Amino acid sequence: MKRFKCAVLGATGAAGQQFIEATRNHPWFETTGLYASERSAGKKYSEACTWTSDGEMPSWAAGMVIKDVARIENDVQEYDVILSALPSEIAKEAEGKCAAHKPVISTASAYRYEDDVPILIPEVNNPHLKLIEQQKKRGWKGFVVPGPNCTTVGLVVSLKPIFDEFGIKNVFMTSLQALSGAGYPGVPSLDITDNVIPFIGGEEGKVEKETVKILGKMNAQGTVGDARMKVSCTCTRVAVRDGHTECVFVETEKPCSPEDYKAAIARFNEKFRKEFGELPSAPKECIVVRNEENRPQPRRDRDAGAGMSTVVGRIRSDPVFANGLKYVVLSHNTKKGAAKGGMLVAEELVKKGLIK
Amino acid sequence: MKRFKCAVLGATGAAGQQFIEATRNHPWFETTGLYASERSAGKKYSEACTWTSDGEMPSWAAGMVIKDVARIENDVQEYDVILSALPSEIAKEAEGKCAAHKPVISTASAYRYEDDVPILIPEVNNPHLKLIEQQKKRGWKGFVVPGPNCTTVGLVVSLKPIFDEFGIKNVFMTSLQALSGAGYPGVPSLDITDNVIPFIGGEEGKVEKETVKILGKMNAQGTVGDARMKVSCTCTRVAVRDGHTECVFVETEKPCSPEDYKAAIARFNEKFRKEFGELPSAPKECIVVRNEENRPQPRRDRDAGAGMSTVVGRIRSDPVFANGLKYVVLSHNTKKGAAKGGMLVAEELVKKGLIK
Amino acid sequence: MKRFKCAVLGATGAAGQQFIEATRNHPWFETTGLYASERSAGKKYSEACTWTSDGEMPSWAAGMVIKDVARIENDVQEYDVILSALPSEIAKEAEGKCAAHKPVISTASAYRYEDDVPILIPEVNNPHLKLIEQQKKRGWKGFVVPGPNCTTVGLVVSLKPIFDEFGIKNVFMTSLQALSGAGYPGVPSLDITDNVIPFIGGEEGKVEKETVKILGKMNAQGTVGDARMKVSCTCTRVAVRDGHTECVFVETEKPCSPEDYKAAIARFNEKFRKEFGELPSAPKECIVVRNEENRPQPRRDRDAGAGMSTVVGRIRSDPVFANGLKYVVLSHNTKKGAAKGGMLVAEELVKKGLIK
Amino acid sequence: MKRFKCAVLGATGAAGQQFIEATRNHPWFETTGLYASERSAGKKYSEACTWTSDGEMPSWAAGMVIKDVARIENDVQEYDVILSALPSEIAKEAEGKCAAHKPVISTASAYRYEDDVPILIPEVNNPHLKLIEQQKKRGWKGFVVPGPNCTTVGLVVSLKPIFDEFGIKNVFMTSLQALSGAGYPGVPSLDITDNVIPFIGGEEGKVEKETVKILGKMNAQGTVGDARMKVSCTCTRVAVRDGHTECVFVETEKPCSPEDYKAAIARFNEKFRKEFGELPSAPKECIVVRNEENRPQPRRDRDAGAGMSTVVGRIRSDPVFANGLKYVVLSHNTKKGAAKGGMLVAEELVKKGLIK
Repeated sequence: MKRFKCAVLGATGAAGQQFIEATRNHPWFETTGLYASERSAGKKYSEACTWTSDGEMPSWAAGMVIKDVARIENDVQEYDVILSALPSEIAKEAEGKCAAHKPVISTASAYRYEDDVPILIPEVNNPHLKLIEQQKKRGWKGFVVPGPNCTTVGLVVSLKPIFDEFGIKNVFMTSLQALSGAGYPGVPSLDITDNVIPFIGGEEGKVEKETVKILGKMNAQGTVGDARMKVSCTCTRVAVRDGHTECVFVETEKPCSPEDYKAAIARFNEKFRKEFGELPSAPKECIVVRNEENRPQPRRDRDAGAGMSTVVGRIRSDPVFANGLKYVVLSHNTKKGAAKGGMLVAEELVKKGLIK
Repeated sequence: MKRFKCAVLGATGAAGQQFIEATRNHPWFETTGLYASERSAGKKYSEACTWTSDGEMPSWAAGMVIKDVARIENDVQEYDVILSALPSEIAKEAEGKCAAHKPVISTASAYRYEDDVPILIPEVNNPHLKLIEQQKKRGWKGFVVPGPNCTTVGLVVSLKPIFDEFGIKNVFMTSLQALSGAGYPGVPSLDITDNVIPFIGGEEGKVEKETVKILGKMNAQGTVGDARMKVSCTCTRVAVRDGHTECVFVETEKPCSPEDYKAAIARFNEKFRKEFGELPSAPKECIVVRNEENRPQPRRDRDAGAGMSTVVGRIRSDPVFANGLKYVVLSHNTKKGAAKGGMLVAEELVKKGLIK
Repeated sequence: MKRFKCAVLGATGAAGQQFIEATRNHPWFETTGLYASERSAGKKYSEACTWTSDGEMPSWAAGMVIKDVARIENDVQEYDVILSALPSEIAKEAEGKCAAHKPVISTASAYRYEDDVPILIPEVNNPHLKLIEQQKKRGWKGFVVPGPNCTTVGLVVSLKPIFDEFGIKNVFMTSLQALSGAGYPGVPSLDITDNVIPFIGGEEGKVEKETVKILGKMNAQGTVGDARMKVSCTCTRVAVRDGHTECVFVETEKPCSPEDYKAAIARFNEKFRKEFGELPSAPKECIVVRNEENRPQPRRDRDAGAGMSTVVGRIRSDPVFANGLKYVVLSHNTKKGAAKGGMLVAEELVKKGLIK
Repeated sequence: MKRFKCAVLGATGAAGQQFIEATRNHPWFETTGLYASERSAGKKYSEACTWTSDGEMPSWAAGMVIKDVARIENDVQEYDVILSALPSEIAKEAEGKCAAHKPVISTASAYRYEDDVPILIPEVNNPHLKLIEQQKKRGWKGFVVPGPNCTTVGLVVSLKPIFDEFGIKNVFMTSLQALSGAGYPGVPSLDITDNVIPFIGGEEGKVEKETVKILGKMNAQGTVGDARMKVSCTCTRVAVRDGHTECVFVETEKPCSPEDYKAAIARFNEKFRKEFGELPSAPKECIVVRNEENRPQPRRDRDAGAGMSTVVGRIRSDPVFANGLKYVVLSHNTKKGAAKGGMLVAEELVKKGLIK
């Protein structure tokens, strides 16, 4: 089988390292170009990058010379797909230049909220992929497909089976987010030792906005309208390395007991296996249900499905809503919630012939 | 002024140590008897107790000989008030024996849910104190006044100004609770390092039940009915030593903007100062409002008002409710939420002539 | 190839779980019996055991019924080897009963300091294995081979190449030990949050005594004398889940520069590969040298060689000793330092025909 | 009594904040000028400074306008003493300009290793203060007195009673240092969660060099020679907010039993009380001895003597040395080890008439 060539943009940062990790032993993709800011350009990757991911920096990456992301346009034709982990402020321009020629998978928020851009989680809103056809109006031969914010992912995936079968009116969510969500160096240890920081800049608005967009329907005109539900979040940071924990209260349209939810998850997993089961990054179970009273826990559950499963537990009826549920969901923020989630998108694009 | 003699029941545990701390330099109260289980009885306090509180064990306590709590009835007459930090399973009997003769202030849940017993937070539901008259029907000359669960305190105090001025329909609360809430030895370090435990046995039901009882009104018949509002909680444990953080979403009866809430808090504080300002344990501000975007934080805010202030921040309108607020509240679980909160009750009882 | 049947004693504790983990997918061994105290006997393993290890409890173990360790003698003949993770106070009797019939590998200290018992780390003191012949005098058909204390392992392995080539006079070692070394529930979180505990009961004496025994020479009479060197330790506990870090100062007999030490390690690794490289649990490198200025670190290095490599870094000349080195060594306390280290011993015993 | 006016240089950093804290309610000193880099100059302190110390920023400081430290010479005459918490790279020039006119107390290392500059810990090497007379040769009317590195302090203070009475040959020390020693933002939380970093750049050399200088004797020529002893350190960082823990092995000249050491400490404390007991920052006990087997601990002992006591515990004979001790010492790195330690020096200088 053909191996697809990837450029990683923003290769020295934490999210870029995750893309390198995610393509390390990937059967379909290999990273053949590393791009970063002018400051790093010309240096060997091992010299320019403080490797903060687990394990060792792959030796093939260590020896590669970093190129200047500002000049990506010059060699974009050498790649089959561009994996962008750029900071949002410079992502817009660089990703646009690449999309003019090639498919771009991105963890940045730069294009997320544009009408012709899907925020893609294949198992949740695969039909949104059609939006990329509209990107041709920008004069692009390629396209941009960003993934959602890492905090949105667990929420949306866990809501999806409820949304499809029972309808959702309102959602309240409080997150307990991991340190790695802030990148590196990120949160100073003096701020988080023996502490909680009950604020993450811009996060709550992103989650509220992305959730209704991702759960929205494509209509006849080929546009996506926001799902008719309301979402309210409070986002906090806790002293956990990886894995965002979210406490969710959902008001449903129709009655949905904990057993109903579990049955819906089972059907959702079944469908997931059929549609995506053959993609290399797909976990066996899209959603893992834990029935112990004290799970999911970030340290014990974040690696379920190699970090690609969403783990749901503590499913209970909610005493406030006539129809409602409450539960706790856990999602690995740097795997499913970032680069590895992006690789699943890339694999789906290969399957659909959109990366070729 | 007369100094009141206190017996501390459950003196060797974490909550009992807090009562000893709270009476250490108290101008009105002094601890003259320490009671614990048969296992500790007869030993010197310094030998029987693993002191886990901050600072040193007071030398006067260190030298006291512990008595058997099963025989408290024999010497209950020697005290003016009994401070009980007993485990709930044995509290019922022991506190009852004491209440037959003397006032009992308790951090245990044994009597909390009985109709003739107030769960007292003076600044919130002082009128409920009248309930104790009904305890005479038990044949008691004294009475029992338990405080609420440590997680209920911050929630109820922060809701009170909203409840009184704007009415409350529904409340969703997610707590991030401190390790000290589980007592000692409590949470194993292997369970909480790099982790969150999204479950605390029995806690959610307690908070849901206590909140509506405490905010309930005394009616003409002298009984207290639950407040007509609904409360739903998810309680989690995080790697913080002291201070429970709670993320609250409130649907109000009448519109209540963040500014409205702050103004109501100012009025509430003013009233607090007038009614309770002279009590030794009363903080200057009952509720402290933090306007920074990332406060309250447990490590930085738990000691506000010497651990007796409730700290509220991140006050925002809620995007789901037509009328609603969301905010974060912090309360020191072992101070306001336990023994020191109990001392404020004791002081109020002295003021009212009920401890004499 | 024949698969050897193992009984795990003390199966519900942390060390017992590690033996179950270590035999989970082992090519030579399988666990066919689980033993614990009377309290657990008769229960299914999944009911009696709080699984605190990473990952899930293996399903084959979950369904096994625990037997009473006090009656192990009745069915000891069903096993090829006994893996004991018993608390030391009951290990002596139970291990003795088993050794009467079968080989016993143990993580307990019960027999460590007896003259006819080797504390075995195969790559360090394989010749000591001959001591087990003397155990026949006890009337045993089998034998006991305990491993060292988990803190001794990293120290002794890292000292061995120095000891053999340059001689050692004196050693000072300060350990920063992981929480898992204390078992479960072990260290209360309230004791270690934002803290260090500079004391671990009995640990310093064990390390000082075991180090000289393990490095001792077998003499003509078939006994092992302590190595002629002195060791002084201070052992502390830090808020790290797994991996003991040790800061070592060594006075050598002959000059030994950092480069000399590294070269000696390379030779030691070469020899290790030749002698033990084919054992399933043997890592590729017995000792991994890190040349970065800030390694080894427990979180980043404890899994080197699947937890079986000893990681040495910060190798420097010591300014106090005329001939001396200082360095930092890291060893995974629940893998190389406990059950997995025990499995390497078991594999070596198979190779030598002593488990059959 | 006259109140002395202080300028704080480097006022926005962590150490500068500590000087502001230390003069907050000081009976003799008040801070009347705040200096920082050009970037902060002209801004109100509350706007330029991220307050990371405990408690609230003092309101008097919040409103002060920061001045440019590069122009301190213009107004140095307005102050009685300069308190410098500048980063070492700019400290040399700025402190020199100030010392030309006024006394400078500094936490920076810029001048520490110069022959005419004492590294002053009054209770240890007060006679070294005479060195400042030699600074007149620089053309200075004032002088510079730097304090030691925060890791040196606990070691030197705990060694002093041994050094004076028993003599010291060799010292091995391993530190477990607190996060606040790295300033703010300092250590990234991702680096230290569930981890130890066994390296702190430059620290070991500083401690080794400063210890022998501070314990050195003034000779007839008025110079200070290094003490004739050798010191070897390994410095590590652990997940503790404040308080450096140090594990020390000492070879003494003369026999010194644990009891001998405790008796020497008692005499040392007695002398301390006589000489320094009236200084406002002096603790009741210079060295606190803990006899529990598991103390000192940073969280429980760092605030002894309001952070100004050095706490020594686990005093044992050392099994390696013919004459030797081992013990654990704890010192509050941002109090005794930085600004508050500097204030004690300032108070002594007032007493001696050198600040006037």
